[in-house]
Amino acid sequence: PAKVKSRRQMWDVQPSEMANNTLNPIRAIVDGMKLTPNPDKPMIALSIGDPTVFGNLPTDDAVLQAMKDAIDSQKFNGYAPSVGYLQSRQAVANFYSCPEAPLQAEDVILTSGCSQAIELVINVFCNPGDNILVPCPGFSLYKTLAVSMGIKVKLYNLLPEKSWEIDLQHMESLIDERTSCLIVTNPSNPCGSVFKKEHLQKILKVASKHCVPILADEIYSDMVFPGCNSSSLASLSSDVPILSCGGLAKRWLVPGWRMGWILIHDRNNIFGSEIRQGLVKLSQRILGACTVVQGALESILNNTPERFYRDTISFLQSNSEICFNELSTVPGLNPVMPSGAMYLMVGIEMERFPDFKDDVDFTERLVTEQSVFCLPASAFEYPNFFRIVVTVPEEMMVEACIRIREFCQHYHRPPSSDCNDLDQ
Amino acid sequence: PAKVKSRRQMWDVQPSEMANNTLNPIRAIVDGMKLTPNPDKPMIALSIGDPTVFGNLPTDDAVLQAMKDAIDSQKFNGYAPSVGYLQSRQAVANFYSCPEAPLQAEDVILTSGCSQAIELVINVFCNPGDNILVPCPGFSLYKTLAVSMGIKVKLYNLLPEKSWEIDLQHMESLIDERTSCLIVTNPSNPCGSVFKKEHLQKILKVASKHCVPILADEIYSDMVFPGCNSSSLASLSSDVPILSCGGLAKRWLVPGWRMGWILIHDRNNIFGSEIRQGLVKLSQRILGACTVVQGALESILNNTPERFYRDTISFLQSNSEICFNELSTVPGLNPVMPSGAMYLMVGIEMERFPDFKDDVDFTERLVTEQSVFCLPASAFEYPNFFRIVVTVPEEMMVEACIRIREFCQHYHRPPSSDCNDLDQ
Ligand SMILES: Cc1ncc(COP(=O)(O)O)c(C=O)c1O
Ligand SMILES: Cc1ncc(COP(=O)(O)O)c(C=O)c1O
Repeated sequence: PAKVKSRRQMWDVQPSEMANNTLNPIRAIVDGMKLTPNPDKPMIALSIGDPTVFGNLPTDDAVLQAMKDAIDSQKFNGYAPSVGYLQSRQAVANFYSCPEAPLQAEDVILTSGCSQAIELVINVFCNPGDNILVPCPGFSLYKTLAVSMGIKVKLYNLLPEKSWEIDLQHMESLIDERTSCLIVTNPSNPCGSVFKKEHLQKILKVASKHCVPILADEIYSDMVFPGCNSSSLASLSSDVPILSCGGLAKRWLVPGWRMGWILIHDRNNIFGSEIRQGLVKLSQRILGACTVVQGALESILNNTPERFYRDTISFLQSNSEICFNELSTVPGLNPVMPSGAMYLMVGIEMERFPDFKDDVDFTERLVTEQSVFCLPASAFEYPNFFRIVVTVPEEMMVEACIRIREFCQHYHRPPSSDCNDLDQ
Repeated sequence: PAKVKSRRQMWDVQPSEMANNTLNPIRAIVDGMKLTPNPDKPMIALSIGDPTVFGNLPTDDAVLQAMKDAIDSQKFNGYAPSVGYLQSRQAVANFYSCPEAPLQAEDVILTSGCSQAIELVINVFCNPGDNILVPCPGFSLYKTLAVSMGIKVKLYNLLPEKSWEIDLQHMESLIDERTSCLIVTNPSNPCGSVFKKEHLQKILKVASKHCVPILADEIYSDMVFPGCNSSSLASLSSDVPILSCGGLAKRWLVPGWRMGWILIHDRNNIFGSEIRQGLVKLSQRILGACTVVQGALESILNNTPERFYRDTISFLQSNSEICFNELSTVPGLNPVMPSGAMYLMVGIEMERFPDFKDDVDFTERLVTEQSVFCLPASAFEYPNFFRIVVTVPEEMMVEACIRIREFCQHYHRPPSSDCNDLDQ
């Protein structure tokens, strides 16, 4: 037999560095928490960014019907092109095209959820050793993906006192010659904030000045409360090339269906054909979205009634207001009223709660004593806050706020100048 | 404002090395071919590994019904765990469990098609600079994925004269201390071959001797012609740990639905919890399969009638025999009869066809003159062969063979000893 360089005499199979470096901060923190609810109170989970868990927010019948029609047609069982069916891409292009930011079918790539859209974009822009700019607090997937790929993450601050606008000076100070992408999440998870037009223009100015392309995570686009004027980043850009990531998950309330997309905005032809081809090549590695959902997509986008979108937003706004109004008067808490999406961030004046080490400790004890679970914002690299998901049924929202108040009232220590503790 | 290390003054956005290194050999070859069919003959494409394109192989009604039930239940709109619903994993475990290779729900990870299963397995086993052993001829995705990740590919030979068995000596000679995975495709794309039990045992012996874990690509498992005894690799392994990749794509004739899985076989606990945890972590990067298909999976596996599987296989066998019998008597061609899957490889005695440079040239001209398109096996790193997909309707199979015969008869030059060309 041929001479063989014997590999090893013993089994030793270890996971790759990439597997070891794939870190999910939410899992890391939640798995480390002792989450034993108070047996006397039913659990209320305000922690999960999945609007379907309580059954109070079903998707529209038109969406379900579109799926069943796609199945019955038997036209959507085979392989689709790796970037998606042309007709489905055209439907997305038509849905999001506007005069300031026109889109054609070729500007759309369908993906397996917005997550894969984000992965493809980071992957096409960045080499190991590059860095990306990521909002803080921000959605944790950006960092999880980047770190696993050997890409560095630089966190730029959002300002709670300015409705979570970006600290532009801080953001700009982080840019260097290896910054290959700026990620902007608008509307925001975890903040529920929506940037004003003027603020978006300032962001674009920084990107333009330093020639950094943008990944706009707009999965919550159009999930904006009435009265708040919102724009897509691309509709305001004259030069900065933008890859906008979105999908069906949130607005159509079907996150499990894994239908996402990338919208390519490049009116100055800065990406050229290279970035487009790069995206196409990367899309061939795994193939994207389920063809049944792709087949249903045109009908989903065209036939979902306006009423459905409106009702969803009204519900989210009403729950946000209930929650904000309640928690505003709780001693030691500083909720920030959202303008969209499905989240609300609450600041904790930690020095008023000396019984707790940090936000993780605080939220853990809130479970133990009150059976209310909110995600500590440490999971978003933002200690001393917690995040509330406002998709729960109204009565649970109300009940949760009552329990949070009770909890805080019990542990809150007023500042010493306000009380006479020391004098007595 | 803060001091900024200005990045660049001009836009220069280039795709990453990974994007540039994602090479699809089938696309590279096919895109370079001039595929202009003869206008007098309707095109017959025997090139696409998608059994649904001709409409003659619909999936079973039970499969469609399972999907519609899953949609109507409204239980499968939200996020599933990243490794899939427990109940769906249990259903796959039950379906594939056997006494020699028992499976539990925790041994199953659901993925977005078999492609993502393969990607996760390569990803969990290999670091950049490692190498993997891949069959030649073989499915091109292995190399596409590996090269894009900086992993080297070593091709081991299959032997057409031995029904495409592995050249075990050659395979063994390629193993070195950085070989982190052996890929075995059985039944095979592109060969349609099915390994006998004894051959599988010899493969396992090599893996065991050198302590190399196996990725068993068994997407065509159970698609085996009657009379041919087939086993899964795991059912024969006493020590070698195996990750078996499969899915709904081929046997259930729904490749677009993107439902795949990894079956973890590790009875000697060589992977330990590390590899399992590595797979779980990697699965969280993007999230896998569409929840509707996941929700339908148990019913698909349990309610698809035996008759459906049998009918599919009968059809594939009958078409294979038609094709093999026809082409066996064509001068200059050497078809190899398959035992399963949906492919048949045909050797070209290139020296008998001096008009053509290679298999790419040969198949290109077959399109131009006869409007029959077969994939040149250069796409599988195996020149001088072409691959026929046998899922086309029978009458097209027959017609295609007639045209291939006509084409070959026209260009075939008999060996000089058999004719008197030179003497005249
Ligand atoms: C800001 C943001 N982007 C992307 C995603 C992922 O979306 P998908 O479920 O479509 O992958 C989420 C999900 O919570 C999100 O909050
Ligand atoms: C051998 C082999 N493995 C894997 C795949 C990919 O399967 P899927 O479509 O489920 O990703 C194919 C598809 O042709 C194949 O032939």
